[in-house]
Amino acid sequence: MDSPRNLRPTAEYQAIDAAHHWHPQTDMAEVNARGSRVFAGADGIWLTDTEGERLIDGMSGLWCVNVGYGRERIAEAMYQQAKVLPYYNTFFQCTHPPAAEFAQAIAEVAPEGFSKVFFANSGSEANDTVFRLARVYWDVMGRPRKKTFIARKNGYHGSSVASASLGGMSFMHAQSGLPIAGVHHIGQPYWFGEAEPGESPADFGLRRARELASAIDRIGAENVCAFVAEPIQGAGGVIIPPETYWPEISRICAEREILLVADEVICGFGRTGRWFGSETFGIKPDLMPIAKGMTSGYVPMGGVLVHDRVAGPVIERAGEFAHGYTYSGHPVACAAGLANLAILREEGLVDRVREDIGPYLQERWLKLGEHPLVGEARMVGLIGALELVRDKERRTRFAEEGRTGTEARELSLANGLVMRATRDTLLIAPPLCLTHEEADMIAERAARTLDDLADAKARAGET
Amino acid sequence: MDSPRNLRPTAEYQAIDAAHHWHPQTDMAEVNARGSRVFAGADGIWLTDTEGERLIDGMSGLWCVNVGYGRERIAEAMYQQAKVLPYYNTFFQCTHPPAAEFAQAIAEVAPEGFSKVFFANSGSEANDTVFRLARVYWDVMGRPRKKTFIARKNGYHGSSVASASLGGMSFMHAQSGLPIAGVHHIGQPYWFGEAEPGESPADFGLRRARELASAIDRIGAENVCAFVAEPIQGAGGVIIPPETYWPEISRICAEREILLVADEVICGFGRTGRWFGSETFGIKPDLMPIAKGMTSGYVPMGGVLVHDRVAGPVIERAGEFAHGYTYSGHPVACAAGLANLAILREEGLVDRVREDIGPYLQERWLKLGEHPLVGEARMVGLIGALELVRDKERRTRFAEEGRTGTEARELSLANGLVMRATRDTLLIAPPLCLTHEEADMIAERAARTLDDLADAKARAGET
Repeated sequence: MDSPRNLRPTAEYQAIDAAHHWHPQTDMAEVNARGSRVFAGADGIWLTDTEGERLIDGMSGLWCVNVGYGRERIAEAMYQQAKVLPYYNTFFQCTHPPAAEFAQAIAEVAPEGFSKVFFANSGSEANDTVFRLARVYWDVMGRPRKKTFIARKNGYHGSSVASASLGGMSFMHAQSGLPIAGVHHIGQPYWFGEAEPGESPADFGLRRARELASAIDRIGAENVCAFVAEPIQGAGGVIIPPETYWPEISRICAEREILLVADEVICGFGRTGRWFGSETFGIKPDLMPIAKGMTSGYVPMGGVLVHDRVAGPVIERAGEFAHGYTYSGHPVACAAGLANLAILREEGLVDRVREDIGPYLQERWLKLGEHPLVGEARMVGLIGALELVRDKERRTRFAEEGRTGTEARELSLANGLVMRATRDTLLIAPPLCLTHEEADMIAERAARTLDDLADAKARAGET
Repeated sequence: MDSPRNLRPTAEYQAIDAAHHWHPQTDMAEVNARGSRVFAGADGIWLTDTEGERLIDGMSGLWCVNVGYGRERIAEAMYQQAKVLPYYNTFFQCTHPPAAEFAQAIAEVAPEGFSKVFFANSGSEANDTVFRLARVYWDVMGRPRKKTFIARKNGYHGSSVASASLGGMSFMHAQSGLPIAGVHHIGQPYWFGEAEPGESPADFGLRRARELASAIDRIGAENVCAFVAEPIQGAGGVIIPPETYWPEISRICAEREILLVADEVICGFGRTGRWFGSETFGIKPDLMPIAKGMTSGYVPMGGVLVHDRVAGPVIERAGEFAHGYTYSGHPVACAAGLANLAILREEGLVDRVREDIGPYLQERWLKLGEHPLVGEARMVGLIGALELVRDKERRTRFAEEGRTGTEARELSLANGLVMRATRDTLLIAPPLCLTHEEADMIAERAARTLDDLADAKARAGET
């Protein structure tokens, strides 16, 4: 690369990319045949590709660029840190100013009792850390048999072997002999997709929460280590649980002495209108894996927020916790994270999601639920979904699950709005800095996409 | 943090650190009682702490800062990229200039046939990727039963659940119920520590390599996926295998149709005087996990270099490889990596390790082997070790394995040289840019450390 602004023709990047770059979560034969789309720049909520086309990034990169693109302050913090101390390890009783100060800054915005941060490089590593730490906790508590994790079908916790095992994505499991032993999956609180006919959200939420009690009782509470779940399932399709779900889960975990792990990788750092999704849903977790909004994606970073009731016994009794990464507490990542947190705090972005731009976009988004192809529109804070259906009254889906979602996503791209499709559900999670005018544009482009989809379906004889 | 140069008193950082920062691979009760050492700046091979003390970093941070600290060019590349496009995902058929160009640049320096790079965020994630990809490879080859990995006792491949399972660190396994199923460990080629009396390095190397054949035959080649090993074991104690070892391993893998995975996280990017350790030892791997020297640690990054004979079938036949990380191919990490590779190439640092500074430091390092407390001094390229012994002739160790190593490491710090201790072995792996004068200083400070240790042992009545 010469300068980031001195671009070559798109076809050159596509050729290099096809020859050398193996993309994540991708069918490379397909993408190489078609040619990658090359993004070259971004500012605020706007992306620009190498053809000069501008799009609204409705997905914050991948649920991460919470403060938006083009933040000179973060770039400058990374630059200054990289010049002064680009790296040093935090093993061997060493630390550096950015690691200590970023841990402190995170603890300041975390719910009470979460005073310790263990740093990693991604949400996957955060959940791997949970896997190892939760077991060590029960060891030092004198209950070493408590080793089994319970998580959820269609949950997402990462792509490493353990985090993908905690996740409940069957297509990921099928490819490499997962899940590993010691992970059990229960049903998800996906009312729109899985409730019985006539079952209320409240009843369904309770029923799904009680699957946890049944699973624990079947496995034996003396063998169960932790329950791991996202406050809102992100990659699974922005599944917002019924109000009855989390209180019942919390009750069951407390009653049966199971650690409660709230995976805040997507919900954390303001996405739901509170600093953590756990606060929005009244969850009292023991461990919170974090990533994404932690640095707004400007540099890879993850971590685990550990409640004092877990940290205390492990630190007092475990001796060396034999876990951690070369880049745990990376100084440049911490410097970026500090600048990112300062922006979130000084601009009041989290409150703004709860009190201003969140409700503003929600109102427009929920109105999309009136469209004939939308079975349900839902949104909390700035994370939402549209369930695409062929028959609105009967909630009938289109044939070949996933085909219509992909079709709609492509139409949305053509309308200048990046959304994600999970099965036949369109997802959105824009940067927290979007303006009211930009929120209007998102709603308009999504509406146009739905109309375009209706036209396409009518032409194809599918409606 | 205000400005990186506007530092607070050490005690303040120590207090914040103790309250909030859970260090990796650390006994936090111990470090909090003692207070962390706070590093605030670095340049070239020199570290500065918040007390103003300057030390030679003999460990390149943690085997990673290959081009040395203070490289304005890398900081500038990160800064420019962070302003223009700080993040975008490489899922959904998207790419960006730095990901495509860094993949190409890596392929250019890789051994022939390694044209594809899969990006991750660390060495741990690189090895998790190996775990998942190798199994998918055998699936598409129509041999789905080939799922078991063979790796080595005292090998190190990371700290995630799967990479720590591939690793053979029993203290890590003990803490969280590892290894996971499907990983088998054989003996390591550690001649100094484990050869029979009178056994030559050549004979020992062959014997240990043939443990792989026995293990495969016992498990059944039809069930074995891959053999995973570092060309030189790093964290295990810079264990340089006898010359007979790797050719025999390669022969066994080829004969029995087992993938050969060379973990290049430490050896890659010039450490051994070639771009990859595999070239130094004549290994022909199928997969090479990489990290560390890939960006010289300026930003977290890892990946897997995939040989065409593996990439071809998977890309043609697997459809979507359902694996990958949010930050795979992170633009800022790729920009740092491009600048880092440019420095390595333009300054000829890899050739310099092989032909100039490597032999220069080796000569002085091997001379330390004459010291009465050193049982063996060894070094390849710029990675070396000193085996500390009580009785040189009989190779008798000091009592309480690890105590003397830690003691020597502390003495070395007091002499202004950061070395690492694994058990009672001192390790060194300085930045590739060190000058002849600095190499002299390393040798002098290490010699002084050995003398100081001899004095301390004499005073304690241990010699």
